[in-house]
Amino acid sequence: MKILESTVERILPVNGEVMEKTQERLDSLTKPVGSLGVMEYIAKKIAGITNEVKPGLPEKASILMAGDHGVVQEGVSAYPQEVTPQMVMNFINGGAAMSVLTKHVGSELIIVDIGVASDLPEMPFLHKKKVAYGTSNMCKGPAMTREQAVEAIEVGIEVAEDCIKKGKGLISIGEMGIGNTTPSTAIISLYAGKPVEEVVGRGTGVDDGRLKIKIEAINRAIELNQPEVKDPIDVLSKVGGLEIAGMAGIILGASANRVPVVIDGFISGAAAVIATAINPEIKNYLLASHLSEEPGHKAMLDYLDISPMLYMNMRLGEGTGAALATTIIDASLKILNEMSTFAEAGVSEAIEE
Amino acid sequence: MKILESTVERILPVNGEVMEKTQERLDSLTKPVGSLGVMEYIAKKIAGITNEVKPGLPEKASILMAGDHGVVQEGVSAYPQEVTPQMVMNFINGGAAMSVLTKHVGSELIIVDIGVASDLPEMPFLHKKKVAYGTSNMCKGPAMTREQAVEAIEVGIEVAEDCIKKGKGLISIGEMGIGNTTPSTAIISLYAGKPVEEVVGRGTGVDDGRLKIKIEAINRAIELNQPEVKDPIDVLSKVGGLEIAGMAGIILGASANRVPVVIDGFISGAAAVIATAINPEIKNYLLASHLSEEPGHKAMLDYLDISPMLYMNMRLGEGTGAALATTIIDASLKILNEMSTFAEAGVSEAIEE
Repeated sequence: MKILESTVERILPVNGEVMEKTQERLDSLTKPVGSLGVMEYIAKKIAGITNEVKPGLPEKASILMAGDHGVVQEGVSAYPQEVTPQMVMNFINGGAAMSVLTKHVGSELIIVDIGVASDLPEMPFLHKKKVAYGTSNMCKGPAMTREQAVEAIEVGIEVAEDCIKKGKGLISIGEMGIGNTTPSTAIISLYAGKPVEEVVGRGTGVDDGRLKIKIEAINRAIELNQPEVKDPIDVLSKVGGLEIAGMAGIILGASANRVPVVIDGFISGAAAVIATAINPEIKNYLLASHLSEEPGHKAMLDYLDISPMLYMNMRLGEGTGAALATTIIDASLKILNEMSTFAEAGVSEAIEE
Repeated sequence: MKILESTVERILPVNGEVMEKTQERLDSLTKPVGSLGVMEYIAKKIAGITNEVKPGLPEKASILMAGDHGVVQEGVSAYPQEVTPQMVMNFINGGAAMSVLTKHVGSELIIVDIGVASDLPEMPFLHKKKVAYGTSNMCKGPAMTREQAVEAIEVGIEVAEDCIKKGKGLISIGEMGIGNTTPSTAIISLYAGKPVEEVVGRGTGVDDGRLKIKIEAINRAIELNQPEVKDPIDVLSKVGGLEIAGMAGIILGASANRVPVVIDGFISGAAAVIATAINPEIKNYLLASHLSEEPGHKAMLDYLDISPMLYMNMRLGEGTGAALATTIIDASLKILNEMSTFAEAGVSEAIEE
């Protein structure tokens, strides 16, 4: 428990003074004030996080946490559980969407086995940090013990800090885990205070029959386990997942080190909700990427008070939307650093109204 | 007139058969069917345009058309007209947002003086194709003659074809021209059949007083010139602009050569509306980039029946949103080309429902 507690204590407010100075520079650049919208917001937010008025281009890492879910026994997913380790191999072999997109944006892909239900071989780029062989079926009891939830968060903190020590300054997160929209739906239902029916979606693409099973399973798990919203670790252990806990740990670890984190879709959003429930200052360290097709994602982003930049009807997960967004974040920092001011370029400013 | 007519005749339907084969490949890749949303749509659309099931990564050009507007005499803009040539110098010197973003995405920036109201020096990267020293004040008569409108369109066709001959396979468009949201508003008001008040915006950021002047000026210009919606060249010449005509020409020229065009915000949207009114098949050659802060942009995209991928509250123009989108288009083509299929990766497919 010590690592988690000390990490949370190290999360400080972002620097408002630096952000004001960054805004002044943005307003002096050769464009109408505010006309680059979210690009300006991103540059300013990163300035506040990093304590630098003109933060340079960060080295990027995309961390992908893989874990399995006991609740798949209930028949909540369209894919068999064996797909989780198969996809881990695919990430490493370069054939997955996430492999292609991280290469495209120049982000190092780091894959963590935090809870895959089978043994994976030793492989380069694979960090073996298994906390358990998947969670237990949350319809029959808590998904994991409180100790396991804390351990998984601490794995995330450790992976993030290791990454940062190696020079990464921007972390995007993602996941792989057959069945993981089910615990994510339970989490947002609890924190948004909305019925499961309102925030549930089709995940990888279940039909009406499975969707009904999924809704019933989530409601049963909440009813049975009675997770306590005021205690995010309790929620995480009872109706969460190992990769969700791991991603919450990455967010906490990065924030404690003043490194911005880009979240992806519905599952990483659930991790961000848990991290923010642990420490509300976390919101200021998060950047949204895309709006997922999962209906509950909007409720998550509202809870986190952050707006997505990409509307692309994506629902793949892995961290694909977050990886794609990092190139827009790079572009935003280049705008701040490389554009000329009105004075430098000899361009006339707006007519005094 | 001959170039314009023959170009329009060369615009053929996109290849539906190729698109189906591309969809088959997309469905065989290691992801749930359809889960990459708009990325899949983009890859498929480009396949249909280029007649290739797996189109390779295109070389990119961003063409920026600069022109001035006589209607600024009415006081419709927050910036003085001298900003148009000043910004052209800024593009060439690398200090503008568009300079930074085209460099970021690896797109060649091509700047065309199609109607700047002053003389610009000889400079590398500047294509001097001036049709007139700005348009006339559309509140006092047509913005230009029909011959000038056609000439400006043909400049666009020529620049696009030149670009394509040099190997470019993806063209994004943008513009610079103080006052150019005013003619663009007139155009969308006419084609969407909506009152000016509903589709007008603040452009570079005018106050309430100037906004009122702008609305009155647009209504007066429409009233006075009586543009004929069924004749897009008539609309363009009476209430359009030289850079709008030039961009419409780029769209026509690229489509005739089966090269996709990425549109930017409100002004390039107006050009796309004109091009589509000339030949409705054009819609299938266009890719939207972002949703602009200008209220009328949504009406344009609805008219064009294309959806933006970026929601970033941008309203700068220049082609900034379009340039940014080209890296997402590259990513979409890489998904199609580089991902493994379920069979190749040994990943199990969805459980038969």
